[in-house]
Amino acid sequence: MMASGKELCEGVEWRIRVVDGSSEVLVPPTGLARKVWLRTKGLISGLGMKVRMFLKQAWDMGANDPRKVIHCIKVGLALTIVSLVYFMRPLYDGVGGNAMWAIMTVVVVFEPTVGATLYKCLNRVCATCLAGFLAVGVHWIASQSGDRFEPLVVGASVFILASIATFSRFIPSVKSMFDYGAMIFILTFSIVAISGYRVDKLFDLAHQRISTIIIGTSLCILVIMLVCPIWSGQELHSLTVRNMDKLSDSLDGWFRCVTQYFTNSNGEDDQKLQGYKCVLSSKASEESMANFARWEPSHGRFNFRHPWKQYLKIGASMRSCAYCIEALNSCINSENQAAESIKKHLSTSCLKVSSSSSSAIKELAESVKKMNKSPTIDLLVEEMNSAVEELHNDLKSLSHLLNPSTTAENQISATGLVPFMEIIPVVTLASILIEISARIEALVGSVEELVKESEMKDKIVAKEEKPEGTMKALQRD
Amino acid sequence: MMASGKELCEGVEWRIRVVDGSSEVLVPPTGLARKVWLRTKGLISGLGMKVRMFLKQAWDMGANDPRKVIHCIKVGLALTIVSLVYFMRPLYDGVGGNAMWAIMTVVVVFEPTVGATLYKCLNRVCATCLAGFLAVGVHWIASQSGDRFEPLVVGASVFILASIATFSRFIPSVKSMFDYGAMIFILTFSIVAISGYRVDKLFDLAHQRISTIIIGTSLCILVIMLVCPIWSGQELHSLTVRNMDKLSDSLDGWFRCVTQYFTNSNGEDDQKLQGYKCVLSSKASEESMANFARWEPSHGRFNFRHPWKQYLKIGASMRSCAYCIEALNSCINSENQAAESIKKHLSTSCLKVSSSSSSAIKELAESVKKMNKSPTIDLLVEEMNSAVEELHNDLKSLSHLLNPSTTAENQISATGLVPFMEIIPVVTLASILIEISARIEALVGSVEELVKESEMKDKIVAKEEKPEGTMKALQRD
Repeated sequence: MMASGKELCEGVEWRIRVVDGSSEVLVPPTGLARKVWLRTKGLISGLGMKVRMFLKQAWDMGANDPRKVIHCIKVGLALTIVSLVYFMRPLYDGVGGNAMWAIMTVVVVFEPTVGATLYKCLNRVCATCLAGFLAVGVHWIASQSGDRFEPLVVGASVFILASIATFSRFIPSVKSMFDYGAMIFILTFSIVAISGYRVDKLFDLAHQRISTIIIGTSLCILVIMLVCPIWSGQELHSLTVRNMDKLSDSLDGWFRCVTQYFTNSNGEDDQKLQGYKCVLSSKASEESMANFARWEPSHGRFNFRHPWKQYLKIGASMRSCAYCIEALNSCINSENQAAESIKKHLSTSCLKVSSSSSSAIKELAESVKKMNKSPTIDLLVEEMNSAVEELHNDLKSLSHLLNPSTTAENQISATGLVPFMEIIPVVTLASILIEISARIEALVGSVEELVKESEMKDKIVAKEEKPEGTMKALQRD
Repeated sequence: MMASGKELCEGVEWRIRVVDGSSEVLVPPTGLARKVWLRTKGLISGLGMKVRMFLKQAWDMGANDPRKVIHCIKVGLALTIVSLVYFMRPLYDGVGGNAMWAIMTVVVVFEPTVGATLYKCLNRVCATCLAGFLAVGVHWIASQSGDRFEPLVVGASVFILASIATFSRFIPSVKSMFDYGAMIFILTFSIVAISGYRVDKLFDLAHQRISTIIIGTSLCILVIMLVCPIWSGQELHSLTVRNMDKLSDSLDGWFRCVTQYFTNSNGEDDQKLQGYKCVLSSKASEESMANFARWEPSHGRFNFRHPWKQYLKIGASMRSCAYCIEALNSCINSENQAAESIKKHLSTSCLKVSSSSSSAIKELAESVKKMNKSPTIDLLVEEMNSAVEELHNDLKSLSHLLNPSTTAENQISATGLVPFMEIIPVVTLASILIEISARIEALVGSVEELVKESEMKDKIVAKEEKPEGTMKALQRD
């Protein structure tokens, strides 16, 4: 009886009118245990669902980019090696209880790319040395100034140096090169200067810290450079090539989309079309990669001092193209649809412009990939420009199709003339396409500059390796 | 004699033809000391110049944003207080030589904003506790497995846990909330687990590390929240308002630029015009601020769980407007100049659209600033739409001015009709302006959503504080 009554209860909904006029559902009174059980069951199944989703996401990520998994294994490897160092008696005696610093160094310094790791390693070692020497000096001055002033001198020096070093981290030029170093400087200086008050073996402390840090950083550098290294420079290079391909695909996608627009068919290849959005959002990662790439030695086809900054310029040029593609979006989706006859009139030349721009960018990507001036790029740009010229001519002859009377604007007149409003979307589309081609020319310029600068740097490196020419000139003197 | 001979030498340039055909200047042989002196002088003056520039840059930065200076003083203050803790005997005995952990915590955890500091503090404390317990557990298992397997068990556990924790840092949801925590987890686990092999006082080590970290974090939280606190949420809010103002100023600048375009005068207010570029590049900082703001308690007019994510949506809407303004750029600077009569025909309505869009955005900025729905925004949007409508009508009547013949394209015919090509830039400009107004409507939508959500959260908080309504309903049950 009880059970059936409960079921009945659950079938009906009890509502009550609350002060503000809305009505609330009242939950019927059931057993507390049952309530708790239902709630718990819901929570557990929800949690299980979430955990499953999370694990699936993680698995997909690992499967999509196995290098991430390799990086994790590298971190585990480096940490295990460092614990071996700690286990081995002789080294343990050498670096004392501070061997922990080696572990800490490995954990903190190990980054996915070689450049980032080198940046952190060099910053850490240099900042530790500099701060160590300074702290020993300050400690010596403090010890000379008597017992009463000693804590004062130490405290004041910590306050002043920490404030200055923190301030320097805000300055863009310091931030890009020595942000981590400034933090380590404050850390080491404070610890050594303050410990100096208690621990007499100041030099020992400084020496131990520096030697353990050097052990840690060398191990990191060895592991990161020997086991499947990932170079920031190479990454930046590939990202640039990939973004160019995406830009080209987007334009190509627009080409198809424009075809559909001109032929009124449906079904866009949406994923390709959206590629330009990656270009829009990759500024931050480009900058950090270019920043880290500066620290990397020669690798693959890239010399030390490869013109990494030029990649940022190429990125900016690509983004300026992508902005225009974004604006193109609105023309295609515009509610103010264009007249069929106008579409037909301009379709050939519009398609030619978009396809020739797309292939020009594709060729540029190829040129960056191989890092030499493409032999066909000038031809492709010429082709693009002649397509633009053709579009210009088509636009000019458009006035033939126009109906000069505004009263007949909502109907195509018997003579085949169309009202002015119906050409606006197509004209806008055409002029944005023309603008895109102009921006692609700027992109061609920055890619050529990159290739030229990179070849120049290659020559300088070659000259430094074989300086006979200069030697001869000097001997003749 | 020697000196005059030298001077003579310096007057003449010696050139020599090198193998590749170019000629090189030969530096005449002068005294080595003089050379070194000149080189050194050049280096020193160059260095002096650089240092002066650097200091000026730093000074300007401090003068422009005194909060950065305050932050530096806060770091110095926190570090000096922590050294006092170390100087004081009782505390020193309590936390032992590990007091260094407190210093390290302060240096590493102290960030410019409250949100970022809280994020790091909570991550550090939780990760240290979790890793400490796990490490003690693993150490117990290792000690049960005999002397031979002990290092194996410890090494394997470090390898596996470090790899997993490193991998988790790649997962976006973990990265945004627990990136720092994962690193601290690896650090603490490795140190405690490996130290366990040598140091018997494992519990002491874990206890010391946790208590010093808690001292450091509490101090940081106190200093960051009591001395001129900078809230991530407030910063995000101000950045959004500021960006909206800049967008509005840019549109206003375009308004003037368009006036100049229509009246053929020169001299743009360039700085205002370029404001939209800030909007284009502020995505990364918006995201990190929204991320940190989640950790902050109620402050000012913002409750805990204020809809910070909505700010990201507003930012995206603003960027989509900014893309269009970027595209507008090309119309104004287009070489393909428009005919005067066309410009005159469209100028009034174009100017009306740009000024009404600008004032709509300004009103939106005001609305976000005060965090309530603006009473005039609907009116302004209506005004903007009617300006767009007017522009539409002007465009429609444009066909009257057109010269349908293409042969007379390069001259304005006697009847005052203009060739079709000369209207294209103006038409493009007009349609991009129309597109901007459409995107502003989307922006209005996202701002209204923010205001609504924020009011809703306010109500929930108010309800939680005074839950009489719910209580009554329950009593009636």
